[in-house]
Amino acid sequence: MSQKKREKRSGIVTLITDFGLQAEYVGAMKGAILSVNRQCQIVDVTHLIPPGDILRTSFVLRNSYPYFPEGTVHLVVVDPGVGTRRRPLILKKGRHFFVGPDNGVFSGILSASGEGAGYEIVRKDFFRRPLSATFHGRDLFGPVAGHLSLGLPPQEFGPRVSSFVRAEMPPAERKGNRLTGRILWVDPFGNLLTNIAREEHGLALSQREWRISGKGWRIETLSKTYGEGKPGQPLALFGSSEYLELAVNQGRAADKLKMKPGDPLVIGLRD
Amino acid sequence: MSQKKREKRSGIVTLITDFGLQAEYVGAMKGAILSVNRQCQIVDVTHLIPPGDILRTSFVLRNSYPYFPEGTVHLVVVDPGVGTRRRPLILKKGRHFFVGPDNGVFSGILSASGEGAGYEIVRKDFFRRPLSATFHGRDLFGPVAGHLSLGLPPQEFGPRVSSFVRAEMPPAERKGNRLTGRILWVDPFGNLLTNIAREEHGLALSQREWRISGKGWRIETLSKTYGEGKPGQPLALFGSSEYLELAVNQGRAADKLKMKPGDPLVIGLRD
Amino acid sequence: MSQKKREKRSGIVTLITDFGLQAEYVGAMKGAILSVNRQCQIVDVTHLIPPGDILRTSFVLRNSYPYFPEGTVHLVVVDPGVGTRRRPLILKKGRHFFVGPDNGVFSGILSASGEGAGYEIVRKDFFRRPLSATFHGRDLFGPVAGHLSLGLPPQEFGPRVSSFVRAEMPPAERKGNRLTGRILWVDPFGNLLTNIAREEHGLALSQREWRISGKGWRIETLSKTYGEGKPGQPLALFGSSEYLELAVNQGRAADKLKMKPGDPLVIGLRD
Repeated sequence: MSQKKREKRSGIVTLITDFGLQAEYVGAMKGAILSVNRQCQIVDVTHLIPPGDILRTSFVLRNSYPYFPEGTVHLVVVDPGVGTRRRPLILKKGRHFFVGPDNGVFSGILSASGEGAGYEIVRKDFFRRPLSATFHGRDLFGPVAGHLSLGLPPQEFGPRVSSFVRAEMPPAERKGNRLTGRILWVDPFGNLLTNIAREEHGLALSQREWRISGKGWRIETLSKTYGEGKPGQPLALFGSSEYLELAVNQGRAADKLKMKPGDPLVIGLRD
Repeated sequence: MSQKKREKRSGIVTLITDFGLQAEYVGAMKGAILSVNRQCQIVDVTHLIPPGDILRTSFVLRNSYPYFPEGTVHLVVVDPGVGTRRRPLILKKGRHFFVGPDNGVFSGILSASGEGAGYEIVRKDFFRRPLSATFHGRDLFGPVAGHLSLGLPPQEFGPRVSSFVRAEMPPAERKGNRLTGRILWVDPFGNLLTNIAREEHGLALSQREWRISGKGWRIETLSKTYGEGKPGQPLALFGSSEYLELAVNQGRAADKLKMKPGDPLVIGLRD
Repeated sequence: MSQKKREKRSGIVTLITDFGLQAEYVGAMKGAILSVNRQCQIVDVTHLIPPGDILRTSFVLRNSYPYFPEGTVHLVVVDPGVGTRRRPLILKKGRHFFVGPDNGVFSGILSASGEGAGYEIVRKDFFRRPLSATFHGRDLFGPVAGHLSLGLPPQEFGPRVSSFVRAEMPPAERKGNRLTGRILWVDPFGNLLTNIAREEHGLALSQREWRISGKGWRIETLSKTYGEGKPGQPLALFGSSEYLELAVNQGRAADKLKMKPGDPLVIGLRD
């Protein structure tokens, strides 16, 4: 294709997968990308998504992509349906590009606002040959990300699509003075991430009095940092992901508050 | 040396080690490579080879290197004999370059075909000074990989050698209608990788009727993808490594089939 | 600022953090660095520092940074006091640059010699806006490392500071003929790293007779490599970090010698 059609790119390809770090899968996929675009810089975001965990993937993508330069390609291969009929997709949102399967991994970026354009990847001449049925990261998504990072416009890969598989995070629920959320994940510091979004519930928690309590602990104020109060003090704050986190000053909230992913979290608001 | 002698390279150096990800070892070795060739792009394949596992190293290398651009240098430091008399090697195969100890880690690339040339690394002026006796990844192999990635021809590093230490994967055995293999590894998805190569046994399994059975499960056909049949269905397929894998649709074969590395796998072929 | 003021850099930014590899934290920080300097090469040293372990951070930094090219920026984000009043710092030592919190993580490079200059980071126009209170790796340290890697002189970021928080490794103690150290860490090979520095105690151990003994084992000589003696032989050697290590030929010292981090290690010197 002609040089004229090339769009501007950052030359960066980020990776989010559930391939783990022990097998050759990450390496083979990186090789396939670099075989298309020798000059791109590949950046590992994580390869430790729990196998097939679409919701977690969507969350990690949403919280990492905005910090990269415009024109970056974000390759997301969490693909339990590889080789079956799920569609391979390119999404464009703002000046960021996303490549991966249409199985809900892009829900976090699609739901944040209405914008964005999607394309189904159908142009087989961009794939590795032979195309395996078991490793589309290496043979399909990787090469497509490589071509995209060279400046190929997304519409070159296939037709526009307008509806996508969604996998929404279960929302926190507010009924009168009870706000009920859920612990979603524990981060490496033992902080407990919840599904209570600042956007929806931050105002209520900053303007009204409230209380969260558990076995032997109680939280009644929003903190700004992990270092407030005395060592061992339980804290609640809106962390870098813009969701409410429970933490413990100089401790691991997961251990101290005895909560784990899946547990409900009830906030009682005062009148 | 003169510019004329420089050969073309991709500028990529891939890494396979058993250094783990917690210590400073990987970082120090990357520094040593970049101190020689500031411009090269270092690509982690894996640092989680089980310590000293030569066979696993050989398998990971064989399944990752072919996807990289020609002119790539593959640095392999799984080196339980560091500081003893094992030879440091450069191998060239096709347009790929390999650097590491002569302890069997290159068996997978040597056995795939007869081609390839080997050189013993003896030119001490390419090493870091002082050369430690305990960390040749940083002081010897890393710097040599750096120089090689700059285009230095392998024969500059030492004399040609023609025989190498081998560590062959134990082959699957066919006796009449019984094909006996072995489970080698579990991948991050719980798939069970075996030593039954498509090249040797794929024809028999695609042309004849056969059966694998275990405690409460049975497989009688070759699948193409991990998503065939009902959820929980046990599957056998030739995966991206071209070896037979046992898998479970939407499940972890290692758990469901109750098999683990080292277990034998017997396939009964029909007449 | 004018081009004239730019200093020479390697264009490399190394990373040492306790962020772990599962969350989006590493990815978001890399994005923030690349958003400032698209051309820099980011090199992971480790993200598996045990959460908040300042001493371990200091040790890993000290053992990795010297192998990188001059003009490299080393970004160290182990920052349990994020959002509290600990100072953000830039250090310069030789031709290396260091960015991170003033909480002791730089003790290893400061103690090695008296040289080095420190600057407190106060120039807010180099930070991401809004600056979060919980993720200074992404919003403050990362962008500063990016600007530094572009050649901005450290004095542009804030005033010179001359005293720093220290976190010294507990030294080995010599009383008469008893040298008492401590096991600090186990490396991925099961080797036991101690706090007995070659610089201080290497001469005594190479010139005098001595003995270390434990449950059923004894070591009486310094080895040079991990491969000495018979398989299973316990060894002591000064490893790549220049501290005394206990190892076992073809085995894991941590398992065989039944020692763990925190355990004392007593060396009896002969008269």
